[in-house]
Amino acid sequence: MNSFEIIADRVNLVRESLRELELDAFIVPHDDEHLGEYIPAEAERLAWVTGFTGSAGLAVLLIERAALFIDGRYTVQARLQAPGEIFEYHHLIDTPHLVWLADQLERGAKVGFDPRLHSLNWYREADALLRERGIELVQVTDNPIDRHWSDRPAPSKAPVILYGEELTGMSSTAKREQIAADLRRRGLDAALLTQAESINWLLNLRGRDVERLPVVLGFAVLYANSTLDFFVDSDKLECFPFTQHVGNDVSLHPIDNLGEVLTRLGEDGLKVQADPATANAWCQLTMEQAGATLVAGQDPTLRLKACKNEVELAGMRAAHQRDAVAMVRFLAWLDRLVESGETAGVDEGTLADRLESFRKASDLYVEPSFDTISALGPNAAMCHYHHSNGVPRPFGQDGIYLVDSGGQYLDGTTDITRTVCVGEVDEEQKAMFTRVMQGHIALDQARFPRGTAGIQLDVLARMPLWRAGFNYDHGTGHGVGHFLSVHEGPQRIAPKGSMEPLQPGMVLSNEPGYYRENAFGIRCENLVVVSESDEQGEVPMLRFERLTYVPFDTRLIDRALLSPDEFRWINEYHAEVRRRLAPQLDGADLAWLEQATALL
Amino acid sequence: MNSFEIIADRVNLVRESLRELELDAFIVPHDDEHLGEYIPAEAERLAWVTGFTGSAGLAVLLIERAALFIDGRYTVQARLQAPGEIFEYHHLIDTPHLVWLADQLERGAKVGFDPRLHSLNWYREADALLRERGIELVQVTDNPIDRHWSDRPAPSKAPVILYGEELTGMSSTAKREQIAADLRRRGLDAALLTQAESINWLLNLRGRDVERLPVVLGFAVLYANSTLDFFVDSDKLECFPFTQHVGNDVSLHPIDNLGEVLTRLGEDGLKVQADPATANAWCQLTMEQAGATLVAGQDPTLRLKACKNEVELAGMRAAHQRDAVAMVRFLAWLDRLVESGETAGVDEGTLADRLESFRKASDLYVEPSFDTISALGPNAAMCHYHHSNGVPRPFGQDGIYLVDSGGQYLDGTTDITRTVCVGEVDEEQKAMFTRVMQGHIALDQARFPRGTAGIQLDVLARMPLWRAGFNYDHGTGHGVGHFLSVHEGPQRIAPKGSMEPLQPGMVLSNEPGYYRENAFGIRCENLVVVSESDEQGEVPMLRFERLTYVPFDTRLIDRALLSPDEFRWINEYHAEVRRRLAPQLDGADLAWLEQATALL
Repeated sequence: MNSFEIIADRVNLVRESLRELELDAFIVPHDDEHLGEYIPAEAERLAWVTGFTGSAGLAVLLIERAALFIDGRYTVQARLQAPGEIFEYHHLIDTPHLVWLADQLERGAKVGFDPRLHSLNWYREADALLRERGIELVQVTDNPIDRHWSDRPAPSKAPVILYGEELTGMSSTAKREQIAADLRRRGLDAALLTQAESINWLLNLRGRDVERLPVVLGFAVLYANSTLDFFVDSDKLECFPFTQHVGNDVSLHPIDNLGEVLTRLGEDGLKVQADPATANAWCQLTMEQAGATLVAGQDPTLRLKACKNEVELAGMRAAHQRDAVAMVRFLAWLDRLVESGETAGVDEGTLADRLESFRKASDLYVEPSFDTISALGPNAAMCHYHHSNGVPRPFGQDGIYLVDSGGQYLDGTTDITRTVCVGEVDEEQKAMFTRVMQGHIALDQARFPRGTAGIQLDVLARMPLWRAGFNYDHGTGHGVGHFLSVHEGPQRIAPKGSMEPLQPGMVLSNEPGYYRENAFGIRCENLVVVSESDEQGEVPMLRFERLTYVPFDTRLIDRALLSPDEFRWINEYHAEVRRRLAPQLDGADLAWLEQATALL
Repeated sequence: MNSFEIIADRVNLVRESLRELELDAFIVPHDDEHLGEYIPAEAERLAWVTGFTGSAGLAVLLIERAALFIDGRYTVQARLQAPGEIFEYHHLIDTPHLVWLADQLERGAKVGFDPRLHSLNWYREADALLRERGIELVQVTDNPIDRHWSDRPAPSKAPVILYGEELTGMSSTAKREQIAADLRRRGLDAALLTQAESINWLLNLRGRDVERLPVVLGFAVLYANSTLDFFVDSDKLECFPFTQHVGNDVSLHPIDNLGEVLTRLGEDGLKVQADPATANAWCQLTMEQAGATLVAGQDPTLRLKACKNEVELAGMRAAHQRDAVAMVRFLAWLDRLVESGETAGVDEGTLADRLESFRKASDLYVEPSFDTISALGPNAAMCHYHHSNGVPRPFGQDGIYLVDSGGQYLDGTTDITRTVCVGEVDEEQKAMFTRVMQGHIALDQARFPRGTAGIQLDVLARMPLWRAGFNYDHGTGHGVGHFLSVHEGPQRIAPKGSMEPLQPGMVLSNEPGYYRENAFGIRCENLVVVSESDEQGEVPMLRFERLTYVPFDTRLIDRALLSPDEFRWINEYHAEVRRRLAPQLDGADLAWLEQATALL
């Protein structure tokens, strides 16, 4: 069968199940039951039934029609992968899937959904919207895709990593006690935890169940007496002194027992906190229907996890030092490549692989922290470009190369973007690069009192672009985890949705950019950590301590646009890069570092 | 009787009424039934019963105790005015009055309140909080203060000002049609309007019912068919072609008929929009109890009123030109006064009066737009200082004078703060003034795309202070009305509560400051209007067009701290001040302007 026939066959199988179940439609989200950013291969239901492998999207299958809803990043990829004979394509935001779906159906129709794969908020909104149109939303726990997915990959059996206090700086018991005390203060009996990052942080565990996200998958219920029920494939824990590691008030349960325990919480009439935006509907409805009182609230680990302690920060600093050496070796190699002219066979993919080979030189390197964006020329204008979604662009025809990459190291997570000159660049490109750098510098130099939120600082990174009539269509900074997800909340620096006050220990990216469609793209990204500052004034201030020390490409700078303060920032930053990295480099790499960090 | 005896007598009279009404307590807010910032003399119930004349506060009278709740501005004044033998003093925020009150009372107690003087939001919160403690909140429409206030001033009989299209740029009919169309789109039958500014703007009226706020007081209901019921003292309209001015779909009613009409709306089962934060509880409860469906929503005039049209802006610009001439004459006079040394008898009060005398030279000047803050030396460190709350400080002993003032002109409203050198200043004071100016300049020079809210821009005005470890404890910019309130929403530039996107035509202040307790205060304030910008880039940008052109005192600037761009801004601003004002000045005033605007 060709790929069209494979998808057609799968869609038909699901439609047969719909008829059996007397359903008129079934909704297939990209999410798994943890509703996180990264999902394991066995949860790629959307890809199985549509062919579309993007990291976000949702399909609606009706008996006669089907539609795929994707965002702007994936308009091209979706058309290449999901057959147009079967699927119509819609933009997730412009055409809300529920509104579209309601328009296809008559009153009395029934729509199936798997309550483990949607948030409670989604469920409540969907139920209200469809009910108003006389359509019934039906929970289907026997997912028709799972029923027909015969060659479904087996879930990972990778053993967990017991992540010790020498890396976490705080025992799991201490973390649980702190959060349990807060539950008690708020009169709550328990908190449901469904996000993999939260549970792994709380139990001082890591794992290899998902690519890019070093976690073991599971669920947990933390009680106000600081005991915890952990639902996990216990095969992954066998070879370890698990109880000794997490403390003996953690009880292990097979994942299949989750429903039973949640039902018991309900029968006991407990008051349970859960996050209706991030926890799946099934968990919460199971508790509620059994008699629990649900208290909507943000995952209670988020703020504690976001504010790294000194041990975690020491790991982050060490990982960044290692990562900087790999980046510099790559950038030096790249310059030599350009100089040599021997670029035959080099493309975006080989560049990304070469960069990873330098990272792999470290024993502590585990994997990339996300899929490397290795983008030449016009491809860099697509913020979420990935060379494997099409044909990687060959090297040699473009002036600018953008590489956004990061590593998962056992002691920390990195994320860095450098935009480098690999050919001819014009004055306009230099001017735009310089404005992006000016924004980066302005944010880097900020001082701010406690209570300041990311939304207040975002403008600093944009004003040099705004004053010239340009902008970029993404946030300026995301939170970063400690050997966890490279995207972590609640901290953020962006024009919207970033009201969380920045606190000491929070790690964030500083990554303004500029993108000219079909021409070029620029992004300058360091990671920073919120720290106490030492001004002599009256109000204690916070500042950003830099984690990333890798040269920015001064060949792309238009000096005429820089203020004296900006000149000084670049020179001081480069002097510090040299000071930190020179002892770990030699030969041609050291020579490269010296010229790349020379005084402007 | 002395002032203590007068207050004691009044409190006793109110307590007698409480006993008659079988109430254990009565709440007296500063607000009147419009819940606005300014209230007429006949609504000063809080002052009548406590002696305290501040612009915000609330008293709670129990049978045996009484408490006055004020904010940080009024801690001194409250103690001077409200007798400590009768009132205990609490901070409005630190000690919420409802919590304090509930702690004083037993279960079964009854608390009276006048539902015309509290918002629906206040009522709902108070009722829930007291009910949980077993305390009943009782509506008292026969206010005990009104009953005993024998020498209560009569309400104003000042005739309305029919404010023509040559000043408003839009007929009342067109305004009503635009808002009514929005009500229809949203499936609503009517909107209740209770804010004086909204009603006066909508009907193209002004009046003299309240000091500082040029409005006629009343209530209005706007219907989805764009007809309007206006509740007002019709004596104020008699001498004018009122119907011709507002259109014949406006019906006049005595204010006393408001309840009857609101009841009818309820009986007709209408869906009525009202703002539970700004409309009084009585109006909304009356409608609801009669059967209306209340739809909570912001006053529908706010956004339209905030975005001034070209005619309103022309008036604002003309008013600012006139106001600038008055300010320059005052500042020139002040410098000559300092030079002459003949400052005997001069104090903060005489300075404020002298400033107003220059404004009064204009035929279009009506009154101050707020009580002038005329503050010498340490008094300027109190943001809301007023010389008449104590003894005005004599001139001659301080280095710095801060004057924050504004005028209501028939064609616009002004608000300006200048901080000037009137004696010896030290390097530290100059450094702080310079940092405040740097913040002012940075905000002034901002460019920003549509959709940007004030919360995003606020940081620009603070960063020069933050980077030195200083801050100021107030917002950076408030909205300003057009011959209406000098404080107008929804636009605002502040670290909190300013999520409203800035739109062309919105007028705002740009007023960073710095305050050193017991020493000095600095504030640099211009008004600006949001305008389209003309950058050549890709994204249309907005910018701030300045309305205020009056010299800043360059004697207070530490040049060593200024960047070349900041030098240029100051010189260009002063050149423009000179260009605009020189033709209207002569003699010593013109000479002063020339040196005050000389190149830095």
